[in-house]
Amino acid sequence: MNPIHPLGVTRRALLSSLATLPVLAGALDPTPALAQSTGGLLPSWNDGPAKQAIFDFVRATTDRSSASYVLLEDRIAVFDQDGTLWVEHPMYTQVVYCLERVPAVVAKKPELKNVEPFKTVLSGNREAMAKLSMRDLEKILAATLTGMSVEEFNAEANKWIETAKHPRWNRLYTELTYQPMLEVLRYLRDNTYKTYIVTGGGQDFVRVYAEKVYGIPPEQVVGTAGGTKYGYDKEGKPFLTKEPKLILNDNNAGKPEGIYLMIGRRPYAAFGNSTGDRQMLEWTGAGAGARLKMLVLHDDAAREYAYGPAQGLPDTRVGTFTQALYDEAKKDGWTVISMKNDWRRIFAFE
Amino acid sequence: MNPIHPLGVTRRALLSSLATLPVLAGALDPTPALAQSTGGLLPSWNDGPAKQAIFDFVRATTDRSSASYVLLEDRIAVFDQDGTLWVEHPMYTQVVYCLERVPAVVAKKPELKNVEPFKTVLSGNREAMAKLSMRDLEKILAATLTGMSVEEFNAEANKWIETAKHPRWNRLYTELTYQPMLEVLRYLRDNTYKTYIVTGGGQDFVRVYAEKVYGIPPEQVVGTAGGTKYGYDKEGKPFLTKEPKLILNDNNAGKPEGIYLMIGRRPYAAFGNSTGDRQMLEWTGAGAGARLKMLVLHDDAAREYAYGPAQGLPDTRVGTFTQALYDEAKKDGWTVISMKNDWRRIFAFE
Repeated sequence: MNPIHPLGVTRRALLSSLATLPVLAGALDPTPALAQSTGGLLPSWNDGPAKQAIFDFVRATTDRSSASYVLLEDRIAVFDQDGTLWVEHPMYTQVVYCLERVPAVVAKKPELKNVEPFKTVLSGNREAMAKLSMRDLEKILAATLTGMSVEEFNAEANKWIETAKHPRWNRLYTELTYQPMLEVLRYLRDNTYKTYIVTGGGQDFVRVYAEKVYGIPPEQVVGTAGGTKYGYDKEGKPFLTKEPKLILNDNNAGKPEGIYLMIGRRPYAAFGNSTGDRQMLEWTGAGAGARLKMLVLHDDAAREYAYGPAQGLPDTRVGTFTQALYDEAKKDGWTVISMKNDWRRIFAFE
Repeated sequence: MNPIHPLGVTRRALLSSLATLPVLAGALDPTPALAQSTGGLLPSWNDGPAKQAIFDFVRATTDRSSASYVLLEDRIAVFDQDGTLWVEHPMYTQVVYCLERVPAVVAKKPELKNVEPFKTVLSGNREAMAKLSMRDLEKILAATLTGMSVEEFNAEANKWIETAKHPRWNRLYTELTYQPMLEVLRYLRDNTYKTYIVTGGGQDFVRVYAEKVYGIPPEQVVGTAGGTKYGYDKEGKPFLTKEPKLILNDNNAGKPEGIYLMIGRRPYAAFGNSTGDRQMLEWTGAGAGARLKMLVLHDDAAREYAYGPAQGLPDTRVGTFTQALYDEAKKDGWTVISMKNDWRRIFAFE
């Protein structure tokens, strides 16, 4: 009757305001109204089974009349990062960071100059670097990611990520996030899902930029994590030093184990792109009710990359999407996202 | 001019609605309006320096005109549990749980019946049980907290916590939470602080009831944590088994280390009651700007307990508030909360 009746206005305004908030649980459920129409949502996705699976899942879990309705506080969605939220080829971004940090580390510890694998990295010989073993890589990671205070690490990594560019596109790595996935993150949050990154990459590294790039705060980034050691400086001020001690190897079975440790609830939605995400999707899928399990398939060499045996392409060192994973996805009803067919646009700058 | 102008109404209604939401970050800041008047807030606290310190801190960090204003997403407050949020005497509640679980464990593994320390626990001889060593206790914890699926553990612990009672009051342990601290948790959340428990107790145990009892969801409970192991049952369904492998010893230096691992930000407020909380308060205090550091002193034998050398009382096995801690608190400007003088009421049932 009264178009500006205070309560009516308040409710509508509340709903749209709440939808812009990154984190929300418990009290109000603004989702039924929002979930009605999907027109205009996920604009970088082509119509098809992948886009539809996302809409169906959100409707099934947020519509109060649905048998699969999920309470606000239980709405957890987890996302792998490398190859799922941003480009992982030709090398994981964090590995690039570590390799590029080597000169600075050697400048502080000159005795490493003629010691392998640091000598090879300093040579700049890309062919030799590509042949470094896993053990060599671990030495480089330990030397470049530990032994400094957490503040020093954050400052260094932040400085790097704000300037370092991907060789193929000559763009910041943070610009090489997948626009369709940024839309999914936002869409799920608008429907009061709490979004987490669950990455095999370093937890501390990803936390440096996750809030700015993905809208995901540090406490919602779970990753491979080392220990820290509490101590005091000369003035008695306490600080934490990053230690070369592995606490959580957040890959494969380590993903559900890490989710249980850091979140303590089973997710309702899980997104990945490689065998490292298999157990996370299995564990998500083993819960009752509607669960969304999605795998990004890199099948678009023109706009991004194409790799993995599911494409008849040889296995690679990163982002292994094996035939066995593909078969499991088909058998268990996971949705495979074809970058080529399901994504209208891949990057925001396109 | 128009008393029901949509925007005006919306903003006011939004502010009060937002204040009831448990978690909130980023977009809107409803705190300045709320922080104006403290009348009627923290009703179970007597007026005095402790209550005032809480009000001063909230005003300093949430008033936009304050030099110590803190962004919404950085508002983190951490609380020790045993002795800070609920009664820890005469024995940590979780230890009572473990001791009471021993008969069920022995029923499943009869070979433990005549093996120490299980034999002593089964005897029911309280004097002998009080003499159990730390190593004995660890054996009991491992036997009662690990070796089952996470679902089995949650179901068992939940069943126990819903019925087990404290011998002194003959009330549920969950009723023995401190009403003044429940008010602080709520008050900080109303001012968009994200509240965390950071406990030396078992993370999984506290997560069972933290949401219901404290309004704190599992992902905001950090505690001493063991590993889990991912596996499959006969039908191929995946599950996690609790393992006797320590990942985080969330005591002493382990508290700031655990906060960095699980939250990734330095808190602005920290509450504790024993030497196990010392480093957490130090690390909180070492951050820039206004930081709230508070210690609960158990000096009220009539209404609760009195213990710790600061009271001229002998040290005890739980909740060690040493003279050194008391001295550090005074030197560094931490606020000591006297249960006797600062708390008008201790329990909700009083």
